[in-house]
Order: sequence, then C-alpha cells, then structure tokens
Amino acid sequence: MSKKYVYMFKDGTSIKDENERRNTLGGKGKNLCEMTDMGIPVPNGFIVTTEACTLYNSSGKVMSDDIKKQIDECIAQLEGSSGKKFGDPSNPLLVSVRSGARASMPGMMDTVLNLGINDTVADALAKKAGDVFAYDSYRRFIMMFADVVIGVSKHDFEHALDKYKEDKGYKGDTDMTGADWKAIVDIFKDIYRKDQGKDFTTDAKEQLYGAITAVFQSWDNERAFVYRRMNDIPYDWGTAVNVQEMVFGNMGETSGTGVVFTRNPASGENAIYGEYLMNAQGEDVVAGVRTPKPFGELAKDSPDCHKKFLEIAAKLEKHYQYVQDMEFTIEDNTLYILQTRNGKCTAQAALQFAIDLEKEGIITKEKAIQQVDPRALDQLLHPMFDAAALKAGKVLGKALPASPGAAAGKVYFDAKDAVAAKERGERVVLVRLETSPDDILGMEVSQGILTARGGNTSHAAVVARGMGTCCISGCEEIKFGKGEFTLGGETVKEGDYISLDGSTGVIYLGDIKTVPAEIAGNFGTFMSWVEGVKGKMAVRANADSPRDATKALEFGATGIGLCRTEHMFFDADRIPKMRKMILSDTEADRRAALDELLPFQKADFIGIYEVMKDLPVTIRLLDPPLHEFMPTKEEDFASLGKDMGKSAADVKARAESLHELNPMMGHRGCRLAVSYPEIAQMQTRAIIEAALEVKKSKGYDIKPEIMIPLVGDLKETRFVKEIIEKKAKELVDAAGVKLDYQIGTMIEIPRACLIADDIASEAEFFSFGTNDLTQMTYGLSRDDAGRILNDYIENNIYEGDPTARLDQTGVGSLMKIAIEKGRKARANLKIGICGEHGGEPSSIGFCHKVGLNYVSCSPFRVPIARLSAAQAALAGEKFD
Amino acid sequence: MSKKYVYMFKDGTSIKDENERRNTLGGKGKNLCEMTDMGIPVPNGFIVTTEACTLYNSSGKVMSDDIKKQIDECIAQLEGSSGKKFGDPSNPLLVSVRSGARASMPGMMDTVLNLGINDTVADALAKKAGDVFAYDSYRRFIMMFADVVIGVSKHDFEHALDKYKEDKGYKGDTDMTGADWKAIVDIFKDIYRKDQGKDFTTDAKEQLYGAITAVFQSWDNERAFVYRRMNDIPYDWGTAVNVQEMVFGNMGETSGTGVVFTRNPASGENAIYGEYLMNAQGEDVVAGVRTPKPFGELAKDSPDCHKKFLEIAAKLEKHYQYVQDMEFTIEDNTLYILQTRNGKCTAQAALQFAIDLEKEGIITKEKAIQQVDPRALDQLLHPMFDAAALKAGKVLGKALPASPGAAAGKVYFDAKDAVAAKERGERVVLVRLETSPDDILGMEVSQGILTARGGNTSHAAVVARGMGTCCISGCEEIKFGKGEFTLGGETVKEGDYISLDGSTGVIYLGDIKTVPAEIAGNFGTFMSWVEGVKGKMAVRANADSPRDATKALEFGATGIGLCRTEHMFFDADRIPKMRKMILSDTEADRRAALDELLPFQKADFIGIYEVMKDLPVTIRLLDPPLHEFMPTKEEDFASLGKDMGKSAADVKARAESLHELNPMMGHRGCRLAVSYPEIAQMQTRAIIEAALEVKKSKGYDIKPEIMIPLVGDLKETRFVKEIIEKKAKELVDAAGVKLDYQIGTMIEIPRACLIADDIASEAEFFSFGTNDLTQMTYGLSRDDAGRILNDYIENNIYEGDPTARLDQTGVGSLMKIAIEKGRKARANLKIGICGEHGGEPSSIGFCHKVGLNYVSCSPFRVPIARLSAAQAALAGEKFD
Repeated sequence: MSKKYVYMFKDGTSIKDENERRNTLGGKGKNLCEMTDMGIPVPNGFIVTTEACTLYNSSGKVMSDDIKKQIDECIAQLEGSSGKKFGDPSNPLLVSVRSGARASMPGMMDTVLNLGINDTVADALAKKAGDVFAYDSYRRFIMMFADVVIGVSKHDFEHALDKYKEDKGYKGDTDMTGADWKAIVDIFKDIYRKDQGKDFTTDAKEQLYGAITAVFQSWDNERAFVYRRMNDIPYDWGTAVNVQEMVFGNMGETSGTGVVFTRNPASGENAIYGEYLMNAQGEDVVAGVRTPKPFGELAKDSPDCHKKFLEIAAKLEKHYQYVQDMEFTIEDNTLYILQTRNGKCTAQAALQFAIDLEKEGIITKEKAIQQVDPRALDQLLHPMFDAAALKAGKVLGKALPASPGAAAGKVYFDAKDAVAAKERGERVVLVRLETSPDDILGMEVSQGILTARGGNTSHAAVVARGMGTCCISGCEEIKFGKGEFTLGGETVKEGDYISLDGSTGVIYLGDIKTVPAEIAGNFGTFMSWVEGVKGKMAVRANADSPRDATKALEFGATGIGLCRTEHMFFDADRIPKMRKMILSDTEADRRAALDELLPFQKADFIGIYEVMKDLPVTIRLLDPPLHEFMPTKEEDFASLGKDMGKSAADVKARAESLHELNPMMGHRGCRLAVSYPEIAQMQTRAIIEAALEVKKSKGYDIKPEIMIPLVGDLKETRFVKEIIEKKAKELVDAAGVKLDYQIGTMIEIPRACLIADDIASEAEFFSFGTNDLTQMTYGLSRDDAGRILNDYIENNIYEGDPTARLDQTGVGSLMKIAIEKGRKARANLKIGICGEHGGEPSSIGFCHKVGLNYVSCSPFRVPIARLSAAQAALAGEKFD
Repeated sequence: MSKKYVYMFKDGTSIKDENERRNTLGGKGKNLCEMTDMGIPVPNGFIVTTEACTLYNSSGKVMSDDIKKQIDECIAQLEGSSGKKFGDPSNPLLVSVRSGARASMPGMMDTVLNLGINDTVADALAKKAGDVFAYDSYRRFIMMFADVVIGVSKHDFEHALDKYKEDKGYKGDTDMTGADWKAIVDIFKDIYRKDQGKDFTTDAKEQLYGAITAVFQSWDNERAFVYRRMNDIPYDWGTAVNVQEMVFGNMGETSGTGVVFTRNPASGENAIYGEYLMNAQGEDVVAGVRTPKPFGELAKDSPDCHKKFLEIAAKLEKHYQYVQDMEFTIEDNTLYILQTRNGKCTAQAALQFAIDLEKEGIITKEKAIQQVDPRALDQLLHPMFDAAALKAGKVLGKALPASPGAAAGKVYFDAKDAVAAKERGERVVLVRLETSPDDILGMEVSQGILTARGGNTSHAAVVARGMGTCCISGCEEIKFGKGEFTLGGETVKEGDYISLDGSTGVIYLGDIKTVPAEIAGNFGTFMSWVEGVKGKMAVRANADSPRDATKALEFGATGIGLCRTEHMFFDADRIPKMRKMILSDTEADRRAALDELLPFQKADFIGIYEVMKDLPVTIRLLDPPLHEFMPTKEEDFASLGKDMGKSAADVKARAESLHELNPMMGHRGCRLAVSYPEIAQMQTRAIIEAALEVKKSKGYDIKPEIMIPLVGDLKETRFVKEIIEKKAKELVDAAGVKLDYQIGTMIEIPRACLIADDIASEAEFFSFGTNDLTQMTYGLSRDDAGRILNDYIENNIYEGDPTARLDQTGVGSLMKIAIEKGRKARANLKIGICGEHGGEPSSIGFCHKVGLNYVSCSPFRVPIARLSAAQAALAGEKFD
C-alpha cells in the first residue's frame, strides 16, 4: 500500500498522536478534522499533507501520480457526500484551496477560492443564485487563480475593474449588476489570454492540481521566508493544503461571513470580539472595502446563527482550553465554521486569559503556565510606545531588535556627550558605529541605543539586554557625517529626537510618547503559580551592581549566577587606575595600582551582598583581554602617560603591544590570573573581606562563590584555585570568623567539557558560559558573523542566527559530556549556565533536560526564565 | 602492610611488568636490579622509588617515617651482605647516592659519593688503604655533601684547594700527599662551619637521609627543569634514588674507572668506544683534569678486567638488544659495573646499529624498527653544520628551533631583496619580524629564515617546515634598526653573514660551513624494512606544488593528503588577480577575475597530477580569510587601484573592511564558498579539467579528492558539495570521459566532530585539521600564545607547548567521537589527518590507535611519519 498523503476531514483523527496529527495535517487541517469529529458544522473537505509538500519541493517541483490519485479519490468522496460534481454545470462542486502549516502563518501563503468554476458552471450558478453572485464569484476566481497559480499580476485585473467602474460612474462594487460582472469576467479572460498566450483553463482537475502545487510553492515565497525567519519556523516543515467545499457568504442578505475572537485579544476581557459582513466573502471583512459590523449585531441580523455560534465558541474554547480565533460563513441562514485556532494576543491578554480560564475551571494552573509564551512576558517588563502616538511616527529604517522596549530621546554620538546631556535632564538615545566597554557609562544613562554594526550578541546588544535598555543593532544603512547621520533619506543631527522600538527593530524620527511597563496584578498572580511548580531549576540573575541585583530580586531571582567584575572597572574614577595597573612595568607597580582598585571593588561587593542577603552570589574573576581597558584616544594616552611619568607615545606603544590577532582565544580569563596572580589575589581579597564585613555588620550568611573563567586544564585550574584559596584562608583565619565560600569554574571552552572530570576534581561548581562555548564550538566569532550569517540565511543553510538559541546538537552534546563527567567526579557538583542562553526559553528547556541546577540571565529576563523553567519541569522530560 | 618504597637490587625484578619496573625504580635502578639478577658484578645497594620522590615533593618536602624505616632496613641488609657497618670505623660501609629517573637525564641531577665517611672512618680507611685515598675521599665527600645537600657553594672549596696547591707549589692533585689531603679536610670543615655556623655532620644516617632528599629536590632544580622541558619529560614522574655500596677506582694503580659505549655512538661502527683512568674516581674521567686513555689500552693495564668487561658488554648488548653506555670501576683488580643504559647516538649511528644488530641476529627487523627514534631521522634529511667549523662560530642568541637543518647566508630583511640576492647567486637568510603569505617567494629562495615573533606554529614555522627550509622563530631579543638588527650585543647589517641551526635554535654570526644531507644506503635499507610492516597507516604528504610532490614521492609518500590551494595565489603574477577578485564589487567582476586565475590554478593541478600519477591527491578549496591576500604597502594599493580603475584610498578602505576581530573564527573556509560560490566553481573547474586532461594525455587514473574546509553543519556541507558536484558533473559529462572523484571535508572545528554523523552523510572522506581543531578546543590562538605559554611553563602548568603534540585527552576525545559517528553513518569513510600533528610521532601513534587510514605531513617529515606509523602498527594497540 502506498503512503497516505491525503486525508478526508473525517479521517484526520485516525492519526492518534496529537503532535503527529498537527505535523502531518498542519494546524488548520488538524482543527478542521477535530471539529468535524465533534459534530461542528464544517464544510467537508480533505487535506494534502505537509509531507506531500516536502516531497514536492524536494523532487524538482513535480507532484507524483500517486498523490494525484489520492486527491482524485477524495474529490470523489466529496462529490458523494455533497451530491455535487466537480466541473458539472448542473450541480457544480466548488472548493477553496488554502495553505496550513504546523504553526499558524497568517496571510503568509496563498489561497484560492471558488475553484471549479468555468463558463458553463457560472451560467448554472447564475440560474441557481443570481447573476451577481455567479459572475462576481467567477471573476474573483479568475483573478486569484491567475495571480496565485499562474503568476499574472493581480494589479492588471484590479486596474481593469477600477476603470470599468469609473467608466460607468459607479461608486463601489455594490453598484455592479450581474451583467457588469459578466462583462468583467470577459475582460479578465482577455487579460489572461494576452499575458499567457492561451485561454484560461476550464478543466477543474487541472485547476485543482495547479492550486495545490501553487500553495506548496508559496512555502518558498519571500513573505513566507521572512515570516519563518522571524518566528524560527524551520524550512523543512512544509505546509499542508486544505481543500474544502465552498460555502458562500455572498449569496444575498441571508448570507454573511465573519472573523471572531472568543475573548478580547488586546485587553484579555472575556467578551466576544470580532466583526462580520452580510452578503460578503471572507476577504471582504479584512479588505476594508466595506466597513464590517461588530459581532454583537449578528443577534439582530441572524439570531439563530448568532446563538449557535456562541454555543460552538464555548464548546471550542473548552475543547482547546484556550481562546479561539474563528472564521465563519453563513450561507443562506446556515452557519459554517471555516476554521478555528488558538488566538494570538498581547502579553496582557495572555495573562488575563490564563487567569480567567483557570477561574472558570476550563484549565488547571499547570495548563495555564504551559500556555503562556515566555517571550510574551518581555513585553510586560519594558516601556511601550503609546499606540496612538506611534501611528504618527515616521519610519527611518529597521534593523536587529537587540533589546526590547521602546525609547525616545535626543541623539548623541559620544558616551561623554550622552552623560552630559543626561545631567542636563535630557532623555538620550546613544547612536554609535558600535559600542565598546568604553561606552558603558553613556549606555547606562541612555533610554535607548542604536548601533550601525554588530548582531544580536554584539557588545551593545548584550550589555543593553543586561541593563534592560532598549537597543537596535546592526543598522548598516546608517551613514555617519560630522555631528549627524542619515537614514531613510533623513538627516538626523545631534540633539534631534529619534525613537526606537527594540522589540521590532524599527527606528522612528521624532519623540514618540512611551508608556511605562506595568506589572499588573495578574503578573504577580501568574508568577506565584509559576513559583509553585515543583522540580524546576532555580533562576539566578547576571548582575554586576547593587542596582542590577535589586532589579533581579524584584523579578524573582534567587541568587546571582554571574557577577562580572570587569564592568566594575569602567567608571571614570576607576578606569585610569585599571589602566595604570595593566601598563605597570613591574609587579610592585602593579600591586600598588591594584591596592588603589581594591577599595572600589570591595565596596561593589559589599553593596551586592547587602542587597542579596543570604542568597548565593557567584563572582567571576577578571575575564576580558586587557586591551579592552585601553584608551583609544590620543588625549587619554597623554593623560595616562602624565600620571605614570611616561610619554604618551610610550603608553600608546605599550597599549598596542596588548593587541592580539584572535583576542577571543588569547590572553584572558584564568590566563590573566596565571600571568598576574596579584590580580586574582586582589579580587579574592575584595570578595572575602566584603563578605566578612557584611556578615559581621548585617548578620547575613554570606557564602561567596568565586568563579574562575576560561579554564581548560586540570593543573591550570588547580594553580588558580590555589592562589584564591591561599589568600582567602589567610583572610578568614585572620578575621577569626567562619566563612563558607566555594571555588568553581566557568565551562566555556570545548576542552573544559571534554576533561570535565579533571576540572570537577578541583571545582565545586560549574557554570556554562555558552556564549564563548558556542563561538568556539562553531569556530564562529560573533563579532565577525554578520556577513556570514546573512549569506547563510539567504541560502537557506541557517534559518536564523544558529547561536541565538543553544545549539542542542553540537554545543549541547559537549554540555552533556561535561555534566556526565563532572558529576562522575563530584556527585554533588552544582551546575548552572550564565551565558545569554540562560534567558532563552528553548535553551532553558534543554538545560532542564540535561539536569542543570540553575540558569542565570539578565534581570529583565528572569521572569521569562522562571516561566520557562516551570514549563520545562511540567513537561517533565529528562535525558537519561 | 605499608607500601613498598625501597627495593634492594636483588628484589627489583619482583616487579614483573618492565614498564612498571622502570617507572618505579627509574631507568638506572631497573638496570642495576636486572644486572644483579644476571649475575653481573654490581656493587650491592637499594633503590628509593620514584613514588617516594613524588610523595616527598607533594607533602611539604618531608620524608615519612615509614620510608626512613624502609631505608634503615635496606641499610641493615647491605651491612649484612658486605660485612661492613655504616659509620663503623673498624669496617665502614660507604655508599654513593645517585638520582635515576625513568628516562636518562645525564648530569641533570645530583650525586653524592663516599657517603658514610667521618673523621674516625677516614682514619680507619687510611689504615686500610692509605692516607691519600682516605683523606682525598673524605674531602670529596665534604665538598659534594656541602654543595649538594646543604647548599654551600662548591666554589669556596675549590678555591681553597687551588690556593693550598699554589702555596705548596704543586702542579696538580697527584702532588698532594696524605697529609695534604688531611689538611684540606680540616680546611673544608672550617669553610663548612663558617658558612653554616655548625660542624659538619658526622652521623651517617643523617647524611644518608639528607642526600636522598637532596636528590628528590634536585628534581626541582633549574637544570632538571630545562632538561625536562627540552625532552618532554613530565614533572610528575619524579626521580628514584640509587644507594649503592662504594667501590673505589682510586685505591691505587690496580684500581680505575671508565665510561664506555659498546659501539661507536657517532659513526655507528661496531667497535668498543670509551675511555678510562687508573687510580681515579668516576668524575675524574669526565672532568678533564687528567687525560683519560682509550678503552683499548685497558688490555695492557688490566688484562683480566678488560676481558671480563668485553664479555659483560656482549652479554648486556644481547640482553638489552641495544648498544650499551656503561660505567665501570675496578677496585684492586676486581671489575664492577656501576651502570648500563641504552646508548644515545647520532641518527647515522642509530641506523647502523639497527642494521648491524639485525645482521648479528641480536634483534629482529621489527625490534630494529621499534628502536629507532623517528625524530632522529630528521637529522638525516637536512644539511648540518660541519662540526669543526661550528666550533669557531660566535653565538648571537637562541630561539625556537622551528624547522630543522643548518643554513648560512647573507641577511636580507625583505622578501623582494632576498629574491634579488638569490638571483645574483647569493645564499640568503631572510630575517623578519614575522612572515606573512606575502613573503612566500622570499622564503622559497632562502637557505634559512629567522623571525622575531611567532611560535612553533607561526606562519614562518609552518611554511618553512613544509619547504624543508631551516627556520628559527620567536627570537624576541632581536632589535631591528634601519637595514640592520642587533642581537647578542652584535649589530648585523643587511648583507652580513649569519648561520642558523634550525635543530637547536642557535643563531651564529658569520658563514659557517654546512654539509649536505646524505641519505646513505642504510637509510634505504631501513626504510624498506619499515615499508614491510603490515597493518600500518598510509603516509601522505602535504604538498602544494609539483616540486613538493616530487619531494614527497622521493621520501615515500603514497599520496597527497593536503594540497592547499591558497599558496598557489601568492606568486607575483597571480596575487594582483587574486586581489582584484577579492575586491570586485560585483559577481560579474569577480567571475572575470576568477577566469584569469583559472589557467594558473589548472596548470598547478596538471603539474601535481603528472608527478603523482595514479596516487590520490586531496585538494582543499580556498581556506584563509581573504584579508590575508591583501597588500599592506601603500604602493601596492596604488598599483592595484590603477589596475581596477579606483583610487588607492578606495582600495585600501575596501581591503581594511575585510579586517576581522577574530579572523581564525571568521569569514573563511567553506564560508567563502557560501558567499562566493563562483570561487568554488572556478577551483572545481581547475581540479576537474586538469584531471581530465592528464587522464587523457598520460593515461593515469586520476581520482581527485576535493576537500571542503571548516564545515560544521549538515546543510552547509550539502550546500558546498552541491556547488562542486554540479560543476564537476557538467564538466565530466561534457568531456564524455569517466572520472572518479570524491568530495570530503576537513574536520577542524569542534562542532564538526560532534555532528560527524551528519557530515559523513555527505562527505566521502574526513581529514582532521588538528591545527585549528586544537586551537578551538583549547580556545587558544597559536598566534597569541607566546606570552601565555611562557607563563604556563614557568609555573609548571604546562610542560611545554601543549599543542605541539596532539592533545589526546581533549582534542583526541573529539576525534574519537568524530570517527565513531562518522563511520556509523558511512562504514567505509576514509579518515586521515593533515594538521602538523600528522608528522609528530606520538600523535601518529594515537592516530593509529583510533583507526585512521592515513596521516599526511610535510614532505620532509614523511620518513618520520612512515617509521612512526610502522612502530604504531607493531605496538598493535587500538582503542575499542
């Protein structure tokens, strides 16, 4: 028996596994089958599976005879049940042909309605239901088919229709008579003949095969491509095709069509929300030619159908345990449901739904938790544009939405200018070619950040997300001039207002009003449910300052998983000392400079401990290559030289000698501690002394976790651990106070995973640094990936940036090796993740599966991570 | 029962496994035990194990009571067998205390002789064997013990002795009477007292413990450190200590001592080779105070001992199946063997020994193959300095021996000048800060290359090894001036002669005579044995030109494992076209430039195929980041701009835009083929057209293997493979000739190993690029590793450059994953290695174990690789 590529709606539920059913039939098809099963009035039809699409696209765009045969059989069944016949003028069967992928991709692919019509069928329909209906339907079909299946421009048809109405002096379609529509049919057929050099096909089967393959091919079109990329939908899923008997909302005033949400998808309010039109086909509701009526009025226009719809809506909400987005058609007072799907909605609405549906007993709390997309929470935590104000905004351009939220402010091109403007009370948007650690202060005072270079993991993006600041990156169209930039044809000068939407990547001219984030009561309720899920990973935050730590606690973090000590050295009063330390010629000079840095570093830790109280704080020793701290401006070399009693040229030469060919794989991380043990000693001293002081002054049970970055060798780990241990012991002994601390490692280079048993023999905890681990595993530097990724995405090699989510196949298998080896060497090894992936839902799911103890992410992603961790725990999957 | 840390000589062979025996007792100790077992006259004694040393050094430099007790027991046994007593003046037991690590480390650690002596013992000895003997022995002991164990400077003692002799008007030690020596003993004791503030110890046990722990500590001394580093001996091996009853070669004219090789270690001649002195202790032979006699004269001085020695020597050669390096002492006409070990010798001698010992039936061919150190073959394949001429050479400095051989020539600082000088008939040494691909032509014409920057895997080092050209790299002491450099206090101007020893890294002033490599008859014979070993991996060569390929065949390569196409673009007539291609604004321009490059590339392949005939040739598509082809000089930008109709500034800006932050992980390898499929197409065309032509013109069965670099993803592999396949099929179809070709991949990024099953579903062969794989696995850029490695080696974290040999633990485990997954997906997958490790013996051993089909290395390392592969096959180990 050959493989089944085509299913009648009534047969779809023979695929028992729901996921398999969706994968095979597409989301729309699955629901049509289920509604059919439930006895809901659905026009009969069949589904050509996603596999048929994949097969078609991978075998030279040819549909196999086997599949055609299966389609023919289903058409025969359709004819049997309806009593109509395909292409038969006496009682013609008309069908719609629609796409339907696994995930809903609204409007992204093509649809053909009224298929099966031709001259004789149209004449027969005219006799049955009037000329207007028949020839309007016919001309619609010609246009859609020619456009979608054959590729004749829709514009030519629309233009001809407009001209016809103009010539006749008609105001709109409603003025058109049956004869007018018949004339239009002829005009359309002429257009087709001119374009194609042959007549419009009258063979219904040929039309059908053509429409089905056109839907298959629409999977390859530009819109679909962009949508998939935006929504992480893999190319190889393919789309199913739904072939359904036509029902007509345009058969007069007892017919109509509508689109309805069972609840309000914007506010979340429990009230039917939607619109309909009498005597219209589906597209008319959306097209805006006539103004649709609010759904409530249907109670007057068609009370029976209104009542019946409400019953069905309630039934479907209960069945799908979620708010439904439905399409219906009334044909001569008979209600048909054309499709239903879970409603897309705002984050606010999603929470409202969750809470209401639970209250109504439709879902459990667990189900509610599983239904909310963690990424949606992000919307709630950042300012948004005022919807009305946004409409007036002029779009300058679009680039990567690197850190969410909305921001408006005056443009400044330099971090110092930004700081000065902020001090004058201005709102600031920092615009830079790219940012560097030098810009940190300027970034901190900005409402939003816009860069011309760099991807989602560039410095600007990473730091902005950490700060919860809106950021758009990689806007390559920006051209910089002196004190200005041009974009989208406009020149924006320093001090001009622009507005950024970090959630969409759109850049607007002018000062668009924003509304602040509102963490409403529902948020709190929902997160308390999340908190109650058993067996979920802990969620910590990456936080480098008391301010970050406070934010982290507010969002429910239960510790700090990564405190990066390097960011602490960029303050204006610290960086010169840091530079002096780095450029010291002798260990003695270096120690002297470190002594100056110690009080600052210690104060940082005291501040963080005081916020975090008894919660764990993981502090990473200095990690970046030292050249990152070096100035780039001549004046800075000069002032530094003056301070050090050297010439500017000497200082510059020394700074340049720190240059590395591949700094990511250079002198950084624990390698710095090996070369300059005094740095690790100073940091240990700051960590331990601060802990002792806060323990003494506040009575908190401070247990610092000291983390060594970039280890890849047993002896190396031991060497650095011994530096820390010796200094820590000395301080604790001298204080005469008991202080527990742990020493652990980042796991961020491939070799560390491969020898994790060795490393775990020394390390008391692991934290995966998947940013670097991913780069090294892929051999792909994120700073240089822009051009490469573009080419890879354009060529369908990658669906998107493969490093944006944890690469479970490659990097993930290294992690599994590390976890297995690590726990073998130390059964109670605590393992977390503190890379960017620690705040990304699918990556968090993976982390749960492989048995991590915690994830750590930027404070603003903590709620997302908490929800993702809860969902992973509820899903309950674990690797063995 | 406590662990056994001390073994009597007669008990050593109770450790049955020979390796374990050596590891526990050290090499010297093992052989002493075995000789004792064989009935050879060895002074009795015992061995404190290497484990005792490791324990001592890791537990705060304290020797445990348990070990002391075991030592005491052995001393008691020694007293029992000798009838003498330790510290007993009536019949004193004197012992020597010597180090003895697993591997021989001649002169690297400390020795104490005559231990057990004190005033009363010395007086007793004087009565028994004369004053001279007794007090000479005593003063030697005081000096050695004070120097080695206590740390009093030897110089003070020597100075005092010299002064005494001068005052007395003596010419040498032989003028000293017993009374003189006695006086010296007193003087030495005074020196000791002054230095230490207490008397020289008279307690024999205290002396013994002190001497043993001093040997343990000598494992930590500077000399041992350097020696270990040079010879890749791990720190954690530790050294054993041999305590042996003293026998005295200085008891008059019937006594003596000597050092002898059983055959000539320089020439390999089968004739006893060595020296002795009558009435002397061991150190005198080496010290050069008296001129020793050739061994042959012992037949006159002590005919019985001479005869006995020859018998023992033959017996030991037979037992150890190798030439022995022996020390003996004659005490009053009785011969004692103090130690024996396999003789270190020149490469020439090693081959001669192998061939002679086999001929004499002492060893089999297999054994002969296993005995020759593959690295020694290197000496035979490169020119060497004339030994006599070398003695006169002034040493300027020493840096990394990056590529072996000796070279002398005039200094030039620029590749172009080097080429011009070569054309004038000069011998050239190219001296550069570092080399880049721009310098290739200059490197090709040079006898030797010296760089100030870069390690063993820098561009200069890698390319020089490939060319078989002598190279010293990373000579950081060089200071460049205008047309000159200074080093070791000398200023060397352009055109001055210097000489380089690439095997030792020493740089000499002047023109030192070299002698060319001589691949003597023995080499051929030996390599034919190697060839006969069954089950060994194939050895291919990395070769980019017909010249390299010819060399490779000459050295026995059976194919080309890596033909790097990028080197082909650096010729003066090609690089401008390459640059034009890279800087093209449009695909059309790029294709035009590629069309110009095609004939060159094709000619290259034709040349290589014609040399290699039916042997396989693996050609790698363009790999390096494109900026490597860019000029750096203003004049080159100008001329390029002129050629392209652009300004020099434009060209320069474009070239600079190719700059990447981490180019090693940037836009290179197959990523270039994705961005510019036309490059891969042109290269495929050159490869296939050349193959078709040579197949036709010469009738060879050419089967090109096309290799895609840097893959890390299935779709990426498929994408590039399809480009190649399509073009190749087109050409083969058009030619109407059957041509087999394969498409495979480099495996050089960690992810490729982790998803090797995916990749093998497309790739027909794998070749491990362990240079890059190692760098990414370690997260360590070889270009930036210099400073880091220094600090790691100084701190005993690494013993040497951990990337010089294949890292079997980390990189090796990735390789194992790749091999397992790859062969699972494609059972007949051919797997090789073409990184630098393909020519390194221990790495080759690993490659055999994990089941590679071949290794590929630079032509000059092919014999080394062949021998290593044969040794690995004979060792017969495989991972399961």
